[in-house]
Amino acid sequence: MGVRNMATIWQQAEELKDEMVERRRDLHRHPETGWTEFRTASMIIGELKNLGYDVKFGDDVIDEKSMMGVPSEAELADYMQRAISEGADPELVKKMAGGKTGIVATLKTDKPGKTVAFRFDMDCNDVEEERSEEHRPAKESFASEHKKAMHACGHDGHVTIGLSAAKLLAANKARLAGTIKLIFQPAEEGVRGAFAMMNAGVVDDVDYLFGGHIGFKATTNNCLVTMTDGFLATTKLDAEFTGVSAHAGAAPEQGKNALLAAAQAAISLNTIPRHSKGSSRINVGVLNAGTGRNVVPDIAAIKLETRGATTEIDEYMVTEAKRILNACAAMYDVKVKITMAGAAPACFADKELGHEVAELIEEKCHYDEVVEYVDMGGSEDCGYFMERVQQHGGRALYMMYGTKIAAGHHNSHFDFNEDCLWKAAATVTEIAVHFSNK
Amino acid sequence: MGVRNMATIWQQAEELKDEMVERRRDLHRHPETGWTEFRTASMIIGELKNLGYDVKFGDDVIDEKSMMGVPSEAELADYMQRAISEGADPELVKKMAGGKTGIVATLKTDKPGKTVAFRFDMDCNDVEEERSEEHRPAKESFASEHKKAMHACGHDGHVTIGLSAAKLLAANKARLAGTIKLIFQPAEEGVRGAFAMMNAGVVDDVDYLFGGHIGFKATTNNCLVTMTDGFLATTKLDAEFTGVSAHAGAAPEQGKNALLAAAQAAISLNTIPRHSKGSSRINVGVLNAGTGRNVVPDIAAIKLETRGATTEIDEYMVTEAKRILNACAAMYDVKVKITMAGAAPACFADKELGHEVAELIEEKCHYDEVVEYVDMGGSEDCGYFMERVQQHGGRALYMMYGTKIAAGHHNSHFDFNEDCLWKAAATVTEIAVHFSNK
Amino acid sequence: MGVRNMATIWQQAEELKDEMVERRRDLHRHPETGWTEFRTASMIIGELKNLGYDVKFGDDVIDEKSMMGVPSEAELADYMQRAISEGADPELVKKMAGGKTGIVATLKTDKPGKTVAFRFDMDCNDVEEERSEEHRPAKESFASEHKKAMHACGHDGHVTIGLSAAKLLAANKARLAGTIKLIFQPAEEGVRGAFAMMNAGVVDDVDYLFGGHIGFKATTNNCLVTMTDGFLATTKLDAEFTGVSAHAGAAPEQGKNALLAAAQAAISLNTIPRHSKGSSRINVGVLNAGTGRNVVPDIAAIKLETRGATTEIDEYMVTEAKRILNACAAMYDVKVKITMAGAAPACFADKELGHEVAELIEEKCHYDEVVEYVDMGGSEDCGYFMERVQQHGGRALYMMYGTKIAAGHHNSHFDFNEDCLWKAAATVTEIAVHFSNK
Amino acid sequence: MGVRNMATIWQQAEELKDEMVERRRDLHRHPETGWTEFRTASMIIGELKNLGYDVKFGDDVIDEKSMMGVPSEAELADYMQRAISEGADPELVKKMAGGKTGIVATLKTDKPGKTVAFRFDMDCNDVEEERSEEHRPAKESFASEHKKAMHACGHDGHVTIGLSAAKLLAANKARLAGTIKLIFQPAEEGVRGAFAMMNAGVVDDVDYLFGGHIGFKATTNNCLVTMTDGFLATTKLDAEFTGVSAHAGAAPEQGKNALLAAAQAAISLNTIPRHSKGSSRINVGVLNAGTGRNVVPDIAAIKLETRGATTEIDEYMVTEAKRILNACAAMYDVKVKITMAGAAPACFADKELGHEVAELIEEKCHYDEVVEYVDMGGSEDCGYFMERVQQHGGRALYMMYGTKIAAGHHNSHFDFNEDCLWKAAATVTEIAVHFSNK
Repeated sequence: MGVRNMATIWQQAEELKDEMVERRRDLHRHPETGWTEFRTASMIIGELKNLGYDVKFGDDVIDEKSMMGVPSEAELADYMQRAISEGADPELVKKMAGGKTGIVATLKTDKPGKTVAFRFDMDCNDVEEERSEEHRPAKESFASEHKKAMHACGHDGHVTIGLSAAKLLAANKARLAGTIKLIFQPAEEGVRGAFAMMNAGVVDDVDYLFGGHIGFKATTNNCLVTMTDGFLATTKLDAEFTGVSAHAGAAPEQGKNALLAAAQAAISLNTIPRHSKGSSRINVGVLNAGTGRNVVPDIAAIKLETRGATTEIDEYMVTEAKRILNACAAMYDVKVKITMAGAAPACFADKELGHEVAELIEEKCHYDEVVEYVDMGGSEDCGYFMERVQQHGGRALYMMYGTKIAAGHHNSHFDFNEDCLWKAAATVTEIAVHFSNK
Repeated sequence: MGVRNMATIWQQAEELKDEMVERRRDLHRHPETGWTEFRTASMIIGELKNLGYDVKFGDDVIDEKSMMGVPSEAELADYMQRAISEGADPELVKKMAGGKTGIVATLKTDKPGKTVAFRFDMDCNDVEEERSEEHRPAKESFASEHKKAMHACGHDGHVTIGLSAAKLLAANKARLAGTIKLIFQPAEEGVRGAFAMMNAGVVDDVDYLFGGHIGFKATTNNCLVTMTDGFLATTKLDAEFTGVSAHAGAAPEQGKNALLAAAQAAISLNTIPRHSKGSSRINVGVLNAGTGRNVVPDIAAIKLETRGATTEIDEYMVTEAKRILNACAAMYDVKVKITMAGAAPACFADKELGHEVAELIEEKCHYDEVVEYVDMGGSEDCGYFMERVQQHGGRALYMMYGTKIAAGHHNSHFDFNEDCLWKAAATVTEIAVHFSNK
Repeated sequence: MGVRNMATIWQQAEELKDEMVERRRDLHRHPETGWTEFRTASMIIGELKNLGYDVKFGDDVIDEKSMMGVPSEAELADYMQRAISEGADPELVKKMAGGKTGIVATLKTDKPGKTVAFRFDMDCNDVEEERSEEHRPAKESFASEHKKAMHACGHDGHVTIGLSAAKLLAANKARLAGTIKLIFQPAEEGVRGAFAMMNAGVVDDVDYLFGGHIGFKATTNNCLVTMTDGFLATTKLDAEFTGVSAHAGAAPEQGKNALLAAAQAAISLNTIPRHSKGSSRINVGVLNAGTGRNVVPDIAAIKLETRGATTEIDEYMVTEAKRILNACAAMYDVKVKITMAGAAPACFADKELGHEVAELIEEKCHYDEVVEYVDMGGSEDCGYFMERVQQHGGRALYMMYGTKIAAGHHNSHFDFNEDCLWKAAATVTEIAVHFSNK
Repeated sequence: MGVRNMATIWQQAEELKDEMVERRRDLHRHPETGWTEFRTASMIIGELKNLGYDVKFGDDVIDEKSMMGVPSEAELADYMQRAISEGADPELVKKMAGGKTGIVATLKTDKPGKTVAFRFDMDCNDVEEERSEEHRPAKESFASEHKKAMHACGHDGHVTIGLSAAKLLAANKARLAGTIKLIFQPAEEGVRGAFAMMNAGVVDDVDYLFGGHIGFKATTNNCLVTMTDGFLATTKLDAEFTGVSAHAGAAPEQGKNALLAAAQAAISLNTIPRHSKGSSRINVGVLNAGTGRNVVPDIAAIKLETRGATTEIDEYMVTEAKRILNACAAMYDVKVKITMAGAAPACFADKELGHEVAELIEEKCHYDEVVEYVDMGGSEDCGYFMERVQQHGGRALYMMYGTKIAAGHHNSHFDFNEDCLWKAAATVTEIAVHFSNK
């Protein structure tokens, strides 16, 4: 075991610094998009088993019916092949077939106590990474080796934090009570993965749940935000319109125009009335339609998302959106298929818990600053875990591991100060010790 | 009897010239909009009975279910009252309740022969007549005495022609054979009246049917067009959208926006694809919506029309239009009520018959010019009568009584050279004599 | 003088109760829409002059260029005539020509002190009043005698409060310091009038400004809200589109379709993106277009409004709206004329001042309840006065004279408990005494 | 020389049958899309030089400024490389850089006479060819060897006809008079190539011009249509919208939405009024917009086309379309770049010339049927050549080499009966002999 038992958690964590940087850079070179984290998960499973965790994955932690936005079978097959060629264990990969790359690792202690869970997301963005010298990952040779795939949201860091925290927790098992659960979630981008893990029941027994994220364009380079708030509920929908093609010159009346149905949908969706009870959002981000200039277009597809300050407002937006999509199809006499491609609820911050964590961490103080509250905007499917835990009488929090970032999240120049990694792992471990013993 | 039996038809007709001008001007002063021709019809019924015709009207010649675009009960009551106050026979008016102002007058002769029918329309336009001195009806004091009502399409002339032809026919009964039918149709404007008379069966026994119209911006002032062609099939639709109002500031999400549904309908209707088989048209001519600036509008109404080079193309337009209207209602979650407000088929000219009439009239030659063909555009519900007669193996024609007009049809400056009236009456009579004896 | 000097203000006010009811009912019977408050203003001017106020009105207190949503010259002439026939002073009416019905009455005291202003609005709504027995004004014979005009927002009460407060203030002049200004504003409905009075400089010297409103659907029947907050900035725009008409069947390509431009505007305006900094609103409340079913429509008009949580957000909405209106005109090659028909800024409540008023009034306590804060939504052009006073270093507040109302504001069944009137007058007077002496 | 001089033209042509089939199949295996016919042109140039023609190509016959819809430099470079790798002469390919693959081959005779020109098009469609056994080219191993490229419109046959006609003409030079011009045009698909060759002046001296096409779903398998009529004028436009992206959740108001501008354009373009003077068409065939679901889309592109029964009607459509495109950009505050991607005029058939050719060919009669007139619909940029020749007082005709086809033009199953090839070559030669001697 690479962590000296006698040292304090923060000392132990700092000693892991170099291996964390190495781990993060390996992950950064091999980014895997949502539901295809076969190599990443294979590595996590192996490591956690070695540390003595009870590790569940695949069907055990993913509810198949609840999976949203899964790549096609053909794509999955290609990704599985790639993962194996890049070192994944073929046996494990096989068990994750269908994209079931979620993992729950459990550490049972000997003392009675609370069940404390931490959630880490694993997937990358569909972004082509910057290759110029100004971009540190390119300069220091750890930029993505995959096309149109990049860890531009720090999930490589999150996995790294999770694995090192696992090591620290195992090393400090004597100080823990109850049960510790480490949840490695696929497909956070597009808010697709949490719903399927929540519906598999992975947080049903959890008393305290903590999510977290690297980032936060802070003035200070080194801070912890104990409570991130203001996540908007969101729903991601795909709509495919199918009409009938016809020669645009010779028989326009024989066509059923899918392009116009989709174009009308884009416009009409934007006319959904504002909601007096709070913020709402609608965006049609992608529209592709038609096969040729002189053909009445018979195919069209749009990708859209709604958001709401509350889950109710988001549901209002979705109800309106679905009716409009169907009406636009009816208007042009075409068919429409609407698919859920992702979802996250609004999630509400637990101020008391945020305060308790702030006090706990400030004592240890390895941060320049501990901030109790940040309002984020944006959406996170960690909200599903938080909501479920709160519904069961548990408590939940979403934290921010503050550090300077080279560019905004999802940007091709994204990078972060790797110094935050060991501090985050220590923070997670301290929280586990504190709350499992409550 | 004011017509000397011995004189030729054209001499007899010319002698009626003054009384025709007087009659036309009386009608011009008392214009009545579609389905409210109570005074006009009352006068016609009385006159034709006096001439010995068998006169049917009201329920006998109007199929109630087929009436389109009828004014409200309250409006009808007002118009009935006005007609009586302007000299209509209250008994007759009562029998025409509900707007059933159509009349069919039949003259049975002693000789076997064909059934020859003529159709005259009676209604005025919803136009405010010009009151300045440049406008002859104003200058010579026979402008409309009714607000927003004007004979701006010459139907006052048509009724006059019909009545004088009735007199000439009665006077020349001995020269006729078979049966002569004079059809006085309400509500030609908006193509509303013919359908209900056709469905009452008034032309089911007709061998030859002739419609006609004053007008035609000719270079010559004095011509007959024996065959007018190119009428477009048309359908007039009203759509009323009903939503739910809401305060636009305080609760916009509670509204169901009828204005937006109607506005979208106006736009989407104009996207109906062109038809490769011939001309089509769509027009949303009127849109009224909303109650106040700060209220989500719960009411909206549109008036629209479709046209087609053939009845099939018009039906294509109507089918598309109805689907779009329903889809727009669905889009904004409002209700829509679609009402037929008028219709006319495409009607096809009978070239042979046009030629025969041209030869017949040229012999008599009181016209500077007899033209066999004019392509019109526009629409006429006389087409229903023509189509029905043609379907039964009969023959039909639409003529034009050519004369100079002061301004285009439906214009507030419209007027015509009254010299055309007696010639048209003579033409009608000659045609009746010729074709009833075939 | 009808108020005994020795009595306390509240006693004096209560003694005015009957004359206040009578006054309110007279005003209720003679409602006058925005910029046509000739009779109302004439009466106010006379009364205040009698009480010794320095009274300014017409051009002196209205900046003509800043007047929005003024009726046509013809309408104004009719309304002036009506006012005179109902007892207005013809001389005064003449001086208010053009709709300049605003009044500022000033009471100068002998003591140095602050300038304290109160604002009362005078206009009625364009609502047809309920005539059934269930509606008290109908039952007790003080319903509106004017068609489509009704005091459905309590401004009859506001004028009454203003006049009685004027009397109380005059009677208690000795207790006052500085200067008291009573502002009677026309055209609050549609937020049209305050801007023109503000731009005439009427509040440039004001230290404390107080607006107020009857209403508030309270559980208690008798309360004072000292600070009403959450007014949305708003802008009212009219857009008139002018195209070229054409026969929809014969020459559709010659038309320039104003109806489609307006319909497109209605839809496109609703696609203005939500603003991340706070609430926004858009509503096209009225659209009227076209002249006839078979004519390509050459005229169209829409009435719209924008709102924003801040003046900046409303300005964003207006900028977007204007660009869209112009683009829709360009799209259909028609002209558009955009007119400001009203505006109000967001106005921010002065919590400290609200608290001070609450403490002042609670001492006297004639209310069941004094509430320090209510969030309203909606819009009020009193915001212009408040903003200007605040910009000059003064302080401003908008209060609510709480009472039960029979139906929501602007509803044809609106009515209120007249008991609130004398309390409001007393409250106004107390505030004047207190703050003028600061 | 493989053609016996003494034999009649038709015998000579029939002897070329096998080499024509071979040639056509070689071309079919190597289809080249518009402006990239480097291999095809290289082969034609070589062959025609060998036959003694004066051969011009590249800049000499293509007006660079008039080229529409040219692939990017990078694409052109790839296609040039491919052509060379498939046997094209690198020197010739280099001279056609920029896509200038047009060729004009001139045969000057010793006798004075007319200048007679024939036009052949060379490019393929962007269609993936059917690979199943039912498709003869697949079964007999001459299907396309290029991805997404297929001779699905018979231009492989046209080139073959042109080359064999060149051989026959050279062999029969003694019977010819004046000058024979063979025009090999690139980029007929999308109507892009003729305009640039016409503007280079290649038909300015032509007395008789003949275009032609394989096809025509005839009942007979073996016919000649001497006059094809009814081509619609057409214009192909590309529009690229550029806005500003923004996070759809965090700052929607900062985006400038190119997707909505394009979607609105698609809809609004379809509302261009029908034209009363004849058929018109509009089609937006392709729309691609946006980069990601949660990003306000900053890019969008559409491909559209207009058509008209006359060039004037098409110009009306284009004028309206351009205004609408600009208005849609203005509506969403984005930029739009509109590019001409193709064009063809309406072209009018020369009935007299059609009749003369029919009589000429019927004499020889190797066809089951010679038809003088077919109305086509569709569009052809040969119209530019025809129009220019007619403007200069010359005469022009578009013929159809009738044969059975396996599937409609542009269909992935398209194929034709190769027997039509030698007959077409003979027909061309006979026409050259006849008209050059006039």
